[in-house]
Amino acid sequence: MTPRVLVIGAGLVGSSLGMALSRAGADVVLEDIARSHALVAASLGAGRVSPADEVDVVVVATPPAVIAHNIVASLDRFPTAVVTDVGSVKETIAAQVVEQSAHAQRYVPSHPMAGSQFTGPLTASSSLFEGRTWVITPLPENSPAAVAAVRELAELVGAQVVELDPARHDEAVAQVSHVPHLMSILTAAHLREVPLENLQLAGQGIRDVTRIAGSDPIMWRQILSANATAVRKELTEVATDLETLIAALDDPAKLEVLLGQGRRGARSLLGKHGHDPLELLQVTVAIPDEPMALGRLFGDVGELGYNVEDFELAHDMAKEVGYLTISVEQDLAEQLRANLVERGWQAWANSKEI
Amino acid sequence: MTPRVLVIGAGLVGSSLGMALSRAGADVVLEDIARSHALVAASLGAGRVSPADEVDVVVVATPPAVIAHNIVASLDRFPTAVVTDVGSVKETIAAQVVEQSAHAQRYVPSHPMAGSQFTGPLTASSSLFEGRTWVITPLPENSPAAVAAVRELAELVGAQVVELDPARHDEAVAQVSHVPHLMSILTAAHLREVPLENLQLAGQGIRDVTRIAGSDPIMWRQILSANATAVRKELTEVATDLETLIAALDDPAKLEVLLGQGRRGARSLLGKHGHDPLELLQVTVAIPDEPMALGRLFGDVGELGYNVEDFELAHDMAKEVGYLTISVEQDLAEQLRANLVERGWQAWANSKEI
Repeated sequence: MTPRVLVIGAGLVGSSLGMALSRAGADVVLEDIARSHALVAASLGAGRVSPADEVDVVVVATPPAVIAHNIVASLDRFPTAVVTDVGSVKETIAAQVVEQSAHAQRYVPSHPMAGSQFTGPLTASSSLFEGRTWVITPLPENSPAAVAAVRELAELVGAQVVELDPARHDEAVAQVSHVPHLMSILTAAHLREVPLENLQLAGQGIRDVTRIAGSDPIMWRQILSANATAVRKELTEVATDLETLIAALDDPAKLEVLLGQGRRGARSLLGKHGHDPLELLQVTVAIPDEPMALGRLFGDVGELGYNVEDFELAHDMAKEVGYLTISVEQDLAEQLRANLVERGWQAWANSKEI
Repeated sequence: MTPRVLVIGAGLVGSSLGMALSRAGADVVLEDIARSHALVAASLGAGRVSPADEVDVVVVATPPAVIAHNIVASLDRFPTAVVTDVGSVKETIAAQVVEQSAHAQRYVPSHPMAGSQFTGPLTASSSLFEGRTWVITPLPENSPAAVAAVRELAELVGAQVVELDPARHDEAVAQVSHVPHLMSILTAAHLREVPLENLQLAGQGIRDVTRIAGSDPIMWRQILSANATAVRKELTEVATDLETLIAALDDPAKLEVLLGQGRRGARSLLGKHGHDPLELLQVTVAIPDEPMALGRLFGDVGELGYNVEDFELAHDMAKEVGYLTISVEQDLAEQLRANLVERGWQAWANSKEI
């Protein structure tokens, strides 16, 4: 049974949700204060623009500043529907709804961790939520059925649901979304001091760092204002790190420590293991003394899809054979060894003896 | 006539250069203090590992801290060759070479604006330099022929050459490379304070901001130490902006101004026009009252490859027709209009009259 859904707000997230839900077979009605945006979203396959009668779930996807108002109105308007929202900050919205509505038990706060620097229905995508985290921060007054309805909606569009306490959610987004956003903003804003001629030297690095700084300032002003306390705490810590960094520019050893902290942080986002993702093990492969043997080996490793973190090459003069020692993530070492043996190589995992 | 080139240092940049030059028909010899790295690079098509006799150009692609030493040694070792390097900081290296060598007239400093967060020959790519800026910072003592030799090498691998004064280069890379790198480092390093559970909420934004923080800390310590004065000046300005930002978290109007500065900065990297790339013009299209007309129009705009920055939809009740006004970059408006007319739409550029 696919749900009947009303999406209020045909921006990037609302339109994308409409497209993804429609693709999954749901009946979606779209509303937007700018009717033309709803019409454009509908023309892209995000649902239909027509009066909403009976709906099972209402998703409020409006700008942050009016989310609470729209939730409260929706709870009144649809006396049996579950209402959720996609707002980036949860604690203040939930508090406003609980204060202003007698029906807060049907409001299940949620937040899909998906978006882009773009806005509006034209940038929507039906795959926006695939594989992304969708946080639900249930209220004590929510019924299990109401929470389940929002969970099913999120899973219907391919997201992975995580349940969190609202305050914990707001702390987490300050750390992994709002502070990174502001660091991107600071980096990009600093370019106002940079002569045009110097901008020619910009490469991919600064483009990646500043991509999200291109986001809508009005929407982000609303998000950050709603989470100002948590953001201030984190940013103040960053300011201290920045002072330490400026002082360390004259101290190579200290500077390298800070750079290493950055690398560990970046890697903690890559692995499945959180803070310590790169426990490496070594696989050693014998390289016969034949033309192109090394090239063939790297070809095989690449085809098998392994990311080689580091390697060493050694040579045994007596045996006229070389050894390549490849470092890969712990979990993959035995698999890599087995796959290489299958392709005809002599290989050992986690072994010092050659 | 393709040159005979010796590349010293088979890391990411050296190996990529060897691959790109070899593909373009140059004869490339590879050297690396770790012979296995040179062998691996050779196995990937970056050249050959054999004694270098006569070469036309030597490219020093070693870690920053030993670049000057390798340049001076190469000038002695190859009495007729032009020597260049790929170091990220130019003024200090050039000063060291001029001080330590009597042959500095054959040393042409250069810096290809290409790389990645990875290191080593396994991550090399023959297309690393395609379309990228390659800065040359000639010395007063360089002959035009020496400068031309380095320019030809850069153009051979698809790069676009820009000539700059060395001090100007170092200021520019502090602004568009070193400071963004450190902002990425600070963002990533701050994750050390973040509970594992909160990391689950990380999306694409923080991954983009922190990608380059994954770079080699030793190499970056050397780069930043060599450019510490310019970097300190820029970072100190950023620290002031950060203080302003923290204070503005309680002031929505000020916050929005800062966010807008960030967006303008991010956009200045996208356009061809530098600081003010997004002068928009409007194209208005008549939408006949037919099913799917709007979808078909957006399909056409998308197929033509235009990035629609904003749009408005209006309706003329009397004529039973709607109008879509699309905002696009100034230079593209007339072209878009013509292309749409060609596809059968009624369209006007830069016109208020409908």
